[in-house]
Amino acid sequence: MIRIGIVGYGNLGKGVELAISQNEDMKLVAVFSRRELGAGTLKSPDTKLLHISKAPEMQNEIDVMILCGGSATDLPEQGPMFARLFNTVDSFDTHAKIPAFYEAMDEAAKAGNNVAIISAGWDPGLFSMNRVLADAVLPKGNGYTFWGKGVSQGHSDAIRRVKGVKYGVQYTVPKEEALQKVRSGENPRLSTRQMHLRDCYVVAEDGADKRAIEEEIRNMPNYFADYDTKVTFISEDEFFKNHTAMPHGGFVMRSGITADNSNHIVEFSLKLDSNPMFTASVLVAFARAAYKLSREGHKGAKTVLDIPLAYLSPKTPEQLRKEFI
Amino acid sequence: MIRIGIVGYGNLGKGVELAISQNEDMKLVAVFSRRELGAGTLKSPDTKLLHISKAPEMQNEIDVMILCGGSATDLPEQGPMFARLFNTVDSFDTHAKIPAFYEAMDEAAKAGNNVAIISAGWDPGLFSMNRVLADAVLPKGNGYTFWGKGVSQGHSDAIRRVKGVKYGVQYTVPKEEALQKVRSGENPRLSTRQMHLRDCYVVAEDGADKRAIEEEIRNMPNYFADYDTKVTFISEDEFFKNHTAMPHGGFVMRSGITADNSNHIVEFSLKLDSNPMFTASVLVAFARAAYKLSREGHKGAKTVLDIPLAYLSPKTPEQLRKEFI
Repeated sequence: MIRIGIVGYGNLGKGVELAISQNEDMKLVAVFSRRELGAGTLKSPDTKLLHISKAPEMQNEIDVMILCGGSATDLPEQGPMFARLFNTVDSFDTHAKIPAFYEAMDEAAKAGNNVAIISAGWDPGLFSMNRVLADAVLPKGNGYTFWGKGVSQGHSDAIRRVKGVKYGVQYTVPKEEALQKVRSGENPRLSTRQMHLRDCYVVAEDGADKRAIEEEIRNMPNYFADYDTKVTFISEDEFFKNHTAMPHGGFVMRSGITADNSNHIVEFSLKLDSNPMFTASVLVAFARAAYKLSREGHKGAKTVLDIPLAYLSPKTPEQLRKEFI
Repeated sequence: MIRIGIVGYGNLGKGVELAISQNEDMKLVAVFSRRELGAGTLKSPDTKLLHISKAPEMQNEIDVMILCGGSATDLPEQGPMFARLFNTVDSFDTHAKIPAFYEAMDEAAKAGNNVAIISAGWDPGLFSMNRVLADAVLPKGNGYTFWGKGVSQGHSDAIRRVKGVKYGVQYTVPKEEALQKVRSGENPRLSTRQMHLRDCYVVAEDGADKRAIEEEIRNMPNYFADYDTKVTFISEDEFFKNHTAMPHGGFVMRSGITADNSNHIVEFSLKLDSNPMFTASVLVAFARAAYKLSREGHKGAKTVLDIPLAYLSPKTPEQLRKEFI
């Protein structure tokens, strides 16, 4: 049994707790949180609920710690701290800061003789794997990543900061026309505006100026100004009925030309009813890989590109060769 | 420069020759064939064209030998012979015999201190990788593989053996309705007949009984009897104009349910204008991996599940972390 710990008990941490229940080779030993969480919070009575400061005392009880904090402030601080003490897995997703985060985690993990798998969600994560695979197989070509349809937390937060907005959610929607252009093999150049639509659902405060809200959203730099943005005002009832789920997904495509001038399209896509639950499931599979790598004596930071796929599976190499290849 | 050799100069071997020209870190040193091929057969004047019996003399000139023979008789014999002498990559695709082929290649490669990457095409190959990845991330769910639209050599050969058939080609076509059922998350049970249509184009000999040909094809056991089979008679002109290309592709899908009852769909698909050119491109990327693994001291047989994705790429780990993750 692989003994797992979770750091952080938000949507993602709760998702990891549930995901572990689907994997028979794993056991959730403890959940660590900064908050004081009451007894009965966890699904399993066998799992300890501990303050994050107690983690160092659990070094001999936990094989892999799954870090479920946020990428903005939690992981840059907690990541290296935990990588000194435990094998870790995280879904650090600030793309521009991944090289620096890798270096910090590599140093900490090596110091502690641990393995730290970073950025192991779906983007970064499964999407990164498919970008590299398709690029290696089709060196002459163009790669495309489309996101959605799904909720963007950053854009939803931006909407909620607009004066007069009570609730709001933003769906990133890939444009079907752009997807079809890529699939046709015409290797299009696509602008930001051509790839994604930003679809916003807003509950306005009583008496708020809806026209002003819509204008402010549409013209918000970085977030909306470069996109086709649709704003729909809805009632509070409708918001809570239809817009509190966290679906997401997307498409990684590569259109390549081999030296005989043949065209080839490689496409990977996800359609996820719950973004945090799926990300949690990816983290758990990579926790298995961290455990195996550590048992083999590996040390330091690893990305999803450094790990053979067989390490993600609970099945034996023989079984995989027989049933999956 | 990675120095490559090719064994076998049919469609696949020719494809590998072309694919190497798209990869700047590789050089094609020699092509080995059982046939006597004339001067000027190869694209590059710097590449040697040698009889297969000369291969042992080239051990110090070649880093990786790409085996392009057929799976039925060539690879079971040539594979272990070459794995004793060289690092090898092949696209052995008789699914049921992969475990035995792995064992034979493992023994030979270990005896020769070489790496032998087996079954590195697209199915087996990229499809196998995606089956394992999706199964590891979504342990509760169902996996589906659809092939096509594309030419099946085995089924085309079967058509051509029917009395009165001059030329024939069979396209395997995935049924759109079945694809949509999987994508909807309803986890359907699909029969052979529900998943694929067999679409045949036949040129009859002059005076042949077309009705008899159609009946014989439709009722052929194993090949056609369990499928919806469509037979269209065409002229010889049309055959050579529209039906000599070798497109293929397919879909690997997994529909899974996480412990909160959310549904998730993972889909990987290929749309290939030329099956042999794409397979050749996959072989070349895995030849790079064989080279890197061998330089690190690895030995024995490996499958596509045993190889980190970064090994397929000519880019540095730093570049991959910065640009692709």
